[in-house]
Amino acid sequence: MRVLAPHEARYDVNLRPAATARVWLGAGQAHETVAVPGVALGYNDALVAVELSTICGSDVHTVAGHRSAPAPLVLGHESVGRIIALGEHGVKSVDGVELRLGDRVVWSVTVSCGECDRCTAGFTQKCRTLAKYGHERIGPRWELTGGFASHVHLRAGTAIVRVPEALPSAVLAPASCATATAWAAVSRGAAGRPLEGVRVLVYGAGLVGLSAVAIAADAGAQVTVIDPSAQRRAFAERFGGTAATAPMAPADIVIEASGHAVADAIAAADVGGTAVLVGSVFPADRVPFDAEDAVRRLLTIAGVHNYTGRELAAAAGFLTGTGRAYPFAEVVGEVFALAEVDEAIAAASAPGAPLRVAINPR
Amino acid sequence: MRVLAPHEARYDVNLRPAATARVWLGAGQAHETVAVPGVALGYNDALVAVELSTICGSDVHTVAGHRSAPAPLVLGHESVGRIIALGEHGVKSVDGVELRLGDRVVWSVTVSCGECDRCTAGFTQKCRTLAKYGHERIGPRWELTGGFASHVHLRAGTAIVRVPEALPSAVLAPASCATATAWAAVSRGAAGRPLEGVRVLVYGAGLVGLSAVAIAADAGAQVTVIDPSAQRRAFAERFGGTAATAPMAPADIVIEASGHAVADAIAAADVGGTAVLVGSVFPADRVPFDAEDAVRRLLTIAGVHNYTGRELAAAAGFLTGTGRAYPFAEVVGEVFALAEVDEAIAAASAPGAPLRVAINPR
Repeated sequence: MRVLAPHEARYDVNLRPAATARVWLGAGQAHETVAVPGVALGYNDALVAVELSTICGSDVHTVAGHRSAPAPLVLGHESVGRIIALGEHGVKSVDGVELRLGDRVVWSVTVSCGECDRCTAGFTQKCRTLAKYGHERIGPRWELTGGFASHVHLRAGTAIVRVPEALPSAVLAPASCATATAWAAVSRGAAGRPLEGVRVLVYGAGLVGLSAVAIAADAGAQVTVIDPSAQRRAFAERFGGTAATAPMAPADIVIEASGHAVADAIAAADVGGTAVLVGSVFPADRVPFDAEDAVRRLLTIAGVHNYTGRELAAAAGFLTGTGRAYPFAEVVGEVFALAEVDEAIAAASAPGAPLRVAINPR
Repeated sequence: MRVLAPHEARYDVNLRPAATARVWLGAGQAHETVAVPGVALGYNDALVAVELSTICGSDVHTVAGHRSAPAPLVLGHESVGRIIALGEHGVKSVDGVELRLGDRVVWSVTVSCGECDRCTAGFTQKCRTLAKYGHERIGPRWELTGGFASHVHLRAGTAIVRVPEALPSAVLAPASCATATAWAAVSRGAAGRPLEGVRVLVYGAGLVGLSAVAIAADAGAQVTVIDPSAQRRAFAERFGGTAATAPMAPADIVIEASGHAVADAIAAADVGGTAVLVGSVFPADRVPFDAEDAVRRLLTIAGVHNYTGRELAAAAGFLTGTGRAYPFAEVVGEVFALAEVDEAIAAASAPGAPLRVAINPR
């Protein structure tokens, strides 16, 4: 275990015992443990003790070397935790409430300045000085940057949402990636109109897809979900969808959450419909696009990546509200200790892996 | 000249002299003249005496055999005229005002039922029982179906907009195609937000593109227009745009009005931006589409085809209001008599043709 030398920074928070982060050094290498004896909190920063983190597909892709990522790096961006320290000037949640020590919270994958052209235009996830939990090279004054650790250092500009004590951590940890992204995708498709009776078609019954199914079904949409796996189709039915292997009819809103069915998703949108692309977060062959068809069918094709703080708050509100009717707690199939992060990622990478494998650092 | 036999229908309106329509019989054939001695007006139909029609690019493509079209057919869907007869139950304009004999009007290219799922969803231009002026085979009880005629028989379900006497007919005739389509494209890109200071990029300085430039510039947008022709670029500057041969910066809204720059238009949209496709109304090679790029850049790609009645009314309102500041009257470069329709189409097809060639049937 490496210990970051305490003289490297003046800490505002000294941790006894030291915080532990599992650091990824590059593809093919085992994670290394780093002890972080203290944290230099900015005025509006917060320190969270992690309760549970889940392993997202993108963590698996990074470890497998299919995504470029800067090492050394603390992976993990789906977590729930409890605030144990606050910066001098305090921190507010997305809904404007002053956060307090002990609050149970989820937080956005992104850290945004709130002041650049993109932030002020509402695209906070594309901030000009964006940082992302679980995606940044470990560095001085910001070591606890990912969820595969005992603690995460939340920087000013992170959207933080308080969550109730009663909800299982397995439901809450994915909120900051799968659920919030699904919420953003469904919202983009709805474009402000009520979803009652609207035909929604979801490609891919991974966690983003399943979450989109539940969010849309809960809003009254007629949801069909397409997935090649019989097991996932059966699970999707419990999230409020009608499962199929191919669409039976055109849809008003198509949500492509697999990354593998972009052409099918565009083709399945009805006249005036919207195809929301949300699964294409890895390099893939270009798709032949028929512009005349898009014009004559009045199609909208919308790319969605990550989400805003408001969308995270709405997604968490869904999970803690009517979303409790759906089996989100069952998405976590295995839980590992923080020391077993390599085993946990192997389990998440295996064929037939559960939708989520979790890491419990306590 | 053929005369439609008067015993074929009971006419509500007998015309002395008979109405004259120029009928297209197929690619490579000269237009034929048909005399229509009367019209069987439905309860909510109207008969219009055509003041001026302009030749749209799609008319040129049809005559050249580049578009399939059902013959025999009266071409022309850009017209201004005056109401000379009304059905028994009367006809209302888009804004709900009862129309009167003598009203000067423009009308939508489409006839919509107003009751099918598409009409009620707001996509009246994709009505399940759609008919289109200038696009339908001539038939019993609806002979005067296109603008290359002395009269047009407006069926119930046509959006009709009254226009002021003072405006030149050359400005008004294209309202029902180029202007209204441009209005729909700009509106789709704006998606409800004010355009003040928004960066708009228009590909193609044909009449749809130029109209979009003027509409966006008039709303306060910073408009750049791309066209290979120096003459068209110079004209585009008079419509409120800054002309260029390639974009200098990303844009919030890109309007592809040429049909030839779809990939460029998608590439030119900034993060969170919208590429509106409106020029792709003819078969073309498919464009390689990078879904991951669209996702990561939060792009919206929207196809626009034709427009709704409200959009036609807004477009006409623009032409008769602040749009008078732009040189719309200069788009008509030549005017032919109805007898010279073949010559007129030849002039509109020639290299370096004016933006519009008109036909005056009076």
